[in-house]
Amino acid sequence: MSSKEEKKKSISSLGKYGLIKHLTGEKIPQNKSTLSAIGDDAAIIDSSGNLILTTTDLILEGIHFNLVYTPLKHLGYKAVIRAISDIYAMNARPGQVMISVGLSNRFSLEQIEELYEGIHLACTRYNVDLAGGDTCSSLTGLTLGVTAIGTVEPGKVVLRGGAAVNDLICITGDIGASYMGLQLLERERKLFEGEGDIQPDLSGCEYIIGRQLKPELPVDVLDELEDKGIIPTSMIDISEGLSSDLLQICQSSNTGCRIYADKIPVDPETARMAGEFSMDPLVPALNGGEDYELLFTVALKDYEIISGIKKLSIIGHITEKDKGCSIVANDGKEIELKSRGWG
Amino acid sequence: MSSKEEKKKSISSLGKYGLIKHLTGEKIPQNKSTLSAIGDDAAIIDSSGNLILTTTDLILEGIHFNLVYTPLKHLGYKAVIRAISDIYAMNARPGQVMISVGLSNRFSLEQIEELYEGIHLACTRYNVDLAGGDTCSSLTGLTLGVTAIGTVEPGKVVLRGGAAVNDLICITGDIGASYMGLQLLERERKLFEGEGDIQPDLSGCEYIIGRQLKPELPVDVLDELEDKGIIPTSMIDISEGLSSDLLQICQSSNTGCRIYADKIPVDPETARMAGEFSMDPLVPALNGGEDYELLFTVALKDYEIISGIKKLSIIGHITEKDKGCSIVANDGKEIELKSRGWG
Repeated sequence: MSSKEEKKKSISSLGKYGLIKHLTGEKIPQNKSTLSAIGDDAAIIDSSGNLILTTTDLILEGIHFNLVYTPLKHLGYKAVIRAISDIYAMNARPGQVMISVGLSNRFSLEQIEELYEGIHLACTRYNVDLAGGDTCSSLTGLTLGVTAIGTVEPGKVVLRGGAAVNDLICITGDIGASYMGLQLLERERKLFEGEGDIQPDLSGCEYIIGRQLKPELPVDVLDELEDKGIIPTSMIDISEGLSSDLLQICQSSNTGCRIYADKIPVDPETARMAGEFSMDPLVPALNGGEDYELLFTVALKDYEIISGIKKLSIIGHITEKDKGCSIVANDGKEIELKSRGWG
Repeated sequence: MSSKEEKKKSISSLGKYGLIKHLTGEKIPQNKSTLSAIGDDAAIIDSSGNLILTTTDLILEGIHFNLVYTPLKHLGYKAVIRAISDIYAMNARPGQVMISVGLSNRFSLEQIEELYEGIHLACTRYNVDLAGGDTCSSLTGLTLGVTAIGTVEPGKVVLRGGAAVNDLICITGDIGASYMGLQLLERERKLFEGEGDIQPDLSGCEYIIGRQLKPELPVDVLDELEDKGIIPTSMIDISEGLSSDLLQICQSSNTGCRIYADKIPVDPETARMAGEFSMDPLVPALNGGEDYELLFTVALKDYEIISGIKKLSIIGHITEKDKGCSIVANDGKEIELKSRGWG
């Protein structure tokens, strides 16, 4: 029996319940609110009078990831990031994630363990408990269903619809990098596919590839805002792209907005790669998505306080609705912001 | 442009956000605890000091359902039932579900509307709010990720691991029907596949087919137990099959069990269909799964009270662990209970 067959055999010999136990471990919960996690019909969470926030997502092979260039460990890590990002985007803190995995029989136990290694790593890094989930067979590709649960004090929750005229529009970190990382990985895949074990040379592009494969969340900025006593008036995570996500805020808040191209933070590596693809760097920045940075608005009176925060850029302001939603290009021209549509 | 093309066009013209809004509607939440549902990064739930229970599940085409004989409306209905069943199984009440749908482009808007019609129907029937979710493209089959959220007073939560020696083992309703319904549908599919529009004659089998395609949950029994002041010592929903699920209770509770074949409630239609398949009716009853009945244990002292409850059968009792887990057949022989394994 080959080693691969041995591994495959051990999945079925573990059985369904055994596999879940093996993968999720019997860890002591990191959060006091996690009263009971894996091993019963549902996870039990104590909210102690706080509001509970929940969000759920599907991550599908061929749509959201390509295993040709996505290590399973990174996939697991990013699955957790994606889910808890939505919790942070409401100014809450995540406490638990639940992950269901649909597996086709081409996966070995070792590979599934890699996936869970990434899941556990992200959970440890962001102090959340893996509180449930399941594995099942899949006839088609690898499928992940990820749910995140968080809590927030009732007065601190931030919605998309709270922006007011003259509020400052802020974003954390830089954007467009994840999209350019994906473009690069896709290009290399097309070039090298079918040529066996040749590894593409991606040196000098570590930042944009890292942003695509293993994004991190700007929790430090949220913590600093909290320390300084600032509650954003509206917030969303940049998952679809700055343009789409800002339009969501404006639509929910019944406002317009004006942002400035020269204020949008783009990493030099992102700009260089956009150049290689004959693309204006604004394109990935506005429409790229998957940056998992935060886009939020704060009252104008708080300008002094927030302007001292690192990794935070003020890119424009909220306007009356009838002014529309636009970006002022470097040459002074105003261009209407458009949603990327179905994504 | 054909009608089908029109429908297809309208999905893309709605756009991602438009589609979700169109499908989920702008309903007023049924539960006070649902503070905010669809339209932000996460749903907001107020638990008012209760414990929060959450559970998540993947439902995959080809594994969990076959669209040849599963109407999309029923699929949506059953997706909700599956998820909230886990909440009831901990003696809690569901308040919200969140459903993410991965769609391949072979689905028309009309079909997706049917799916959501079933989802809304189950939500209304069981008084839960559709509090979130998403739609995305799928390259492969139809994929559903379903999360349910419920609450329970801290003293009333029932785990799998609370059964004690001499406790009575109870189940609601009857079991094995869903499995025989599935066998019948599969047989008819194989017979008629490829022969165009011929509809198989399934009259006289409405009960078992209904149990497979549109199961209901024994909430009335839970309500009656509550009215009578009885809190089960352990509980699980019968989703894998009586045998597997009872073994879960015994393993978690560190006990054995003895159940009696002649006490297990099987509907006459289930028994008749088992006969047609040359099967002992005990086989679907023990190993069938997907019945969504409740399996629970209560203290022996409560025998008088529970014996008056309709749709409840006492099928055996909990023993010391070293007695093992067995079923006493009609001829008096003891047979060891076995788990169905990977399912």
